Amino acid sequence: MSRLAPRPQRREPQNWREHLYEIIFEADTRAGKLFDVVLLVAILLSVAVVMLESVRSIRSAHGGLLFAAEWFFTILFTVEYVVRLICVPRPLRYVFSFYGIVDLLAILPTYLTAIPYVAGRAGTQRLATIRALRLLRAFRIFKLAHMLSEAEALRQAIWAARAKIAVFLSVVLIAVVIVGSAMHLIEGGKVDADGRPVVTGFDSIPESMYWAIVTMTTVGYGDVSPSTPAGKALAAGMMMLGYCLIIVPTGIVTAELTHVGAKKLSTQVCPGCMAEGHDADAAFCKYCGTHL
Amino acid sequence: MSRLAPRPQRREPQNWREHLYEIIFEADTRAGKLFDVVLLVAILLSVAVVMLESVRSIRSAHGGLLFAAEWFFTILFTVEYVVRLICVPRPLRYVFSFYGIVDLLAILPTYLTAIPYVAGRAGTQRLATIRALRLLRAFRIFKLAHMLSEAEALRQAIWAARAKIAVFLSVVLIAVVIVGSAMHLIEGGKVDADGRPVVTGFDSIPESMYWAIVTMTTVGYGDVSPSTPAGKALAAGMMMLGYCLIIVPTGIVTAELTHVGAKKLSTQVCPGCMAEGHDADAAFCKYCGTHL
Amino acid sequence: MSRLAPRPQRREPQNWREHLYEIIFEADTRAGKLFDVVLLVAILLSVAVVMLESVRSIRSAHGGLLFAAEWFFTILFTVEYVVRLICVPRPLRYVFSFYGIVDLLAILPTYLTAIPYVAGRAGTQRLATIRALRLLRAFRIFKLAHMLSEAEALRQAIWAARAKIAVFLSVVLIAVVIVGSAMHLIEGGKVDADGRPVVTGFDSIPESMYWAIVTMTTVGYGDVSPSTPAGKALAAGMMMLGYCLIIVPTGIVTAELTHVGAKKLSTQVCPGCMAEGHDADAAFCKYCGTHL
Amino acid sequence: MSRLAPRPQRREPQNWREHLYEIIFEADTRAGKLFDVVLLVAILLSVAVVMLESVRSIRSAHGGLLFAAEWFFTILFTVEYVVRLICVPRPLRYVFSFYGIVDLLAILPTYLTAIPYVAGRAGTQRLATIRALRLLRAFRIFKLAHMLSEAEALRQAIWAARAKIAVFLSVVLIAVVIVGSAMHLIEGGKVDADGRPVVTGFDSIPESMYWAIVTMTTVGYGDVSPSTPAGKALAAGMMMLGYCLIIVPTGIVTAELTHVGAKKLSTQVCPGCMAEGHDADAAFCKYCGTHL
Repeated sequence: MSRLAPRPQRREPQNWREHLYEIIFEADTRAGKLFDVVLLVAILLSVAVVMLESVRSIRSAHGGLLFAAEWFFTILFTVEYVVRLICVPRPLRYVFSFYGIVDLLAILPTYLTAIPYVAGRAGTQRLATIRALRLLRAFRIFKLAHMLSEAEALRQAIWAARAKIAVFLSVVLIAVVIVGSAMHLIEGGKVDADGRPVVTGFDSIPESMYWAIVTMTTVGYGDVSPSTPAGKALAAGMMMLGYCLIIVPTGIVTAELTHVGAKKLSTQVCPGCMAEGHDADAAFCKYCGTHL
Repeated sequence: MSRLAPRPQRREPQNWREHLYEIIFEADTRAGKLFDVVLLVAILLSVAVVMLESVRSIRSAHGGLLFAAEWFFTILFTVEYVVRLICVPRPLRYVFSFYGIVDLLAILPTYLTAIPYVAGRAGTQRLATIRALRLLRAFRIFKLAHMLSEAEALRQAIWAARAKIAVFLSVVLIAVVIVGSAMHLIEGGKVDADGRPVVTGFDSIPESMYWAIVTMTTVGYGDVSPSTPAGKALAAGMMMLGYCLIIVPTGIVTAELTHVGAKKLSTQVCPGCMAEGHDADAAFCKYCGTHL
Repeated sequence: MSRLAPRPQRREPQNWREHLYEIIFEADTRAGKLFDVVLLVAILLSVAVVMLESVRSIRSAHGGLLFAAEWFFTILFTVEYVVRLICVPRPLRYVFSFYGIVDLLAILPTYLTAIPYVAGRAGTQRLATIRALRLLRAFRIFKLAHMLSEAEALRQAIWAARAKIAVFLSVVLIAVVIVGSAMHLIEGGKVDADGRPVVTGFDSIPESMYWAIVTMTTVGYGDVSPSTPAGKALAAGMMMLGYCLIIVPTGIVTAELTHVGAKKLSTQVCPGCMAEGHDADAAFCKYCGTHL
Repeated sequence: MSRLAPRPQRREPQNWREHLYEIIFEADTRAGKLFDVVLLVAILLSVAVVMLESVRSIRSAHGGLLFAAEWFFTILFTVEYVVRLICVPRPLRYVFSFYGIVDLLAILPTYLTAIPYVAGRAGTQRLATIRALRLLRAFRIFKLAHMLSEAEALRQAIWAARAKIAVFLSVVLIAVVIVGSAMHLIEGGKVDADGRPVVTGFDSIPESMYWAIVTMTTVGYGDVSPSTPAGKALAAGMMMLGYCLIIVPTGIVTAELTHVGAKKLSTQVCPGCMAEGHDADAAFCKYCGTHL
């Protein structure tokens, strides 16, 4: 809850580094908001370039343009990275933070492709694709708007339900292993007339587990599907189980969200014991009895 | 909420234009209701004609009949459009409103197919299909019945949850791009024995993203599916993520709807005991028996 | 609500017809419960016979046994039908009730297959399959146990949400028609090198609508799937829409169920105005103010 | 609820058997927790061995290593099983309990594969796969952490909704049988030009029911899908039904979970104003300030 607590009165930035910090890392001022919007557009465009470059026909037709755009964005992000390093109070902490690593991964691959030795060993295509991780930088947009508190509420609801979700996932995974093994017994190990093994997609437990996950999550590609009556019966049973199981996590998060939403807490702080989190309809502190 | 507030006492229509307006645009009077029902039936029949016309065998067998029906409905809707223009107080505002544009799109294509030059350039089939947009006019039926307040309640719940839904969709789309890129790395870029590229459905990031959306929404066509062990493992992980992610929006709207539904209490305060939270249909306080 | 109201003191059955009625139509006495259990087992077994008979290999191997079992159950159900007719106070009303028609459909097809003329025209296989409707009789089991009130609560929740569900289905169907038409435009009407039409599964609007329903409900067979980039983009958009739309009905019924569950109503009847449905915590009738 | 009630003051273990019991069967002491963690790791590793052994290529490459690991885990689990038998107060009751049987099934297959006669009749591969049931032992991990109360809450919510779920599953299964039979009528029984039956996947009612379950649970493999217009229309109708039906169980469990979650109020009544419904952590009445 402390994240949502009213911030202490912010002091004015004193020098150019603090000014820069405010613009780049915060979104309270007009310059800060503008910077975030420009950055977001640059990120989305640079990811679009990565995507287009992966399409063979576009790459061969507009290769030069995409190459130029790629270097433009890389240099832009490099300048931004350096400025972030300069204006942040503790640069090393930023470098090893989540966003610090993502910011570095956004620019590194392009430089590496320019080194023939690295590009040869790692594969230009491989390095190029890693740049798609750039999009992770877009998570910063939540900072921009009223979406921060919504994202926070969602995060809290999921966090509050984490133990229930862990229990649920354990049950699902155990069911996947058991049913996957059973299907391997029933459908796997077929041989054709010449005694050679037939590929059924249930030829090992891991492959059967892949099928079990595809089925239980109701994705159902159909690249692997049972062919024997016993296998079909077990598959049908598993689908019904998956159909019933899917409702459990839904209920969990809904109940947590309803709880979070229903707890109409007042923002009052008890003058007697400084306790927070009173119900909106409370007239007295529920911890010490002081009149609110 | 202002939309649901009781309307002020409606004054009687004064002349034929106001009478027509009442019949065509409102659904309070018997004539107005009848008009809406007849219009709805005409819309549904005309959309059925569009559908049947798109089936090759029916078109060749009953082409003349469908052609006649099409022109009958087009002329009917044209008359209706003109009448709407005449009786509405501000015609220009109607023309550029959502329903005004839909009403125009419902009649324009048929006239355009009669102009050889346009039909030749745009394609008769293309113009014919656009007429299916006619069905959008059917949204007016919500006006007819008690469905309006229900539709309004749903719209409000979704609107109230719009920021949460935006956060959710951002997370989903970022996951789609990241996983799509990873699958492109793992499954794409295969070559056969002769060194020619093999079509796997993961040959570019956009194609991989199409697969990622198909998988994450649990649709799972199976037209594209991973074939390598690493790809299958990543796909299985993504399915579990999608299985867990799908619960979040469900919870969001449910919590909002529960909130909207719970609000159906009257705002009256008991003059006897000052208790609140009476049912909207209560005439007496349920705690002390005082008349409300 | 009247169904759940406490029944008036039941008077003892006076003669054999009332005794029979009590056994066959009710489930309060021991004989009545036993009858229902025996009937349920007979229904399930007879449906199993219908199923087994439809499997070619079993039919050719055990045809005689299945034929005998079929006639055994048909005669059993015929006797039951006649007894029901005898002991029910108003036979005609029973004959034309839902269960009366289902009871008749459960025995008629077997007799019809014995008439060569009918069997020849309608098809023995066709008549045999209709017998599966017998299973509808199993709905009577809800009468057996505490499941009646649960089934009633579910029915009420769905009934209470019927207008919201109608709005939801209208929106889904309109989306299906619009997107189906758009896909017909984008993917349909292909011709091969010789100018002959290629079957794509989008060759008419109804076929495209079938695809749209398969996609929107996240079933995703994959027997029809888009092949052009524009079609894939539209399909991806529709999946995201379906992914978001599916949450709405879930929320609707959940909110109604939560409401039904939370409305802890007392079974008290107001001595002043005979009104029912008071809150469990009400001390005074909320309609007339009488002390409860 | 009695399971969650505070346990009576535990007495200190008196001898080595009670000490062993505490370590092996409970997770309150440090030694007990360590034992559980080590056991969990051993279970997961042994299941991984079973999985890897089922992959042909890994089996042929590292067969000896896997064989050794398998016997290592089997002997480890055998020792554990014997120690459990020794230290448990009533050994016979443990042997026939759920975990007792699972513990035995975890070690038996490996010994059986060593007996040539049994291995020859039952199949080594078959016996090897049964060992995957070992994973069921992992359910004991819920004992380890705060997950026990969460798992218990989930179990209670599902248990409370069991009658509603039974009603729901009955409706689904009856719909599956009816629609499956109808599809068998519509799509089945096709013959080709030579009069020989064509395999459509709807050739018997059980096969059609398999399709109906695959469709209704929105899995949608596509290995069986309708080909006639009537079949597609019925399939589309069933999908819409499944799309609407899936929301019902979701709502059921959510409503139950919300109920369970909402119950977290204390049962205390304020001595000052007799108000109820205080939070479990409240020390003072929130309406009048009296000490509770």
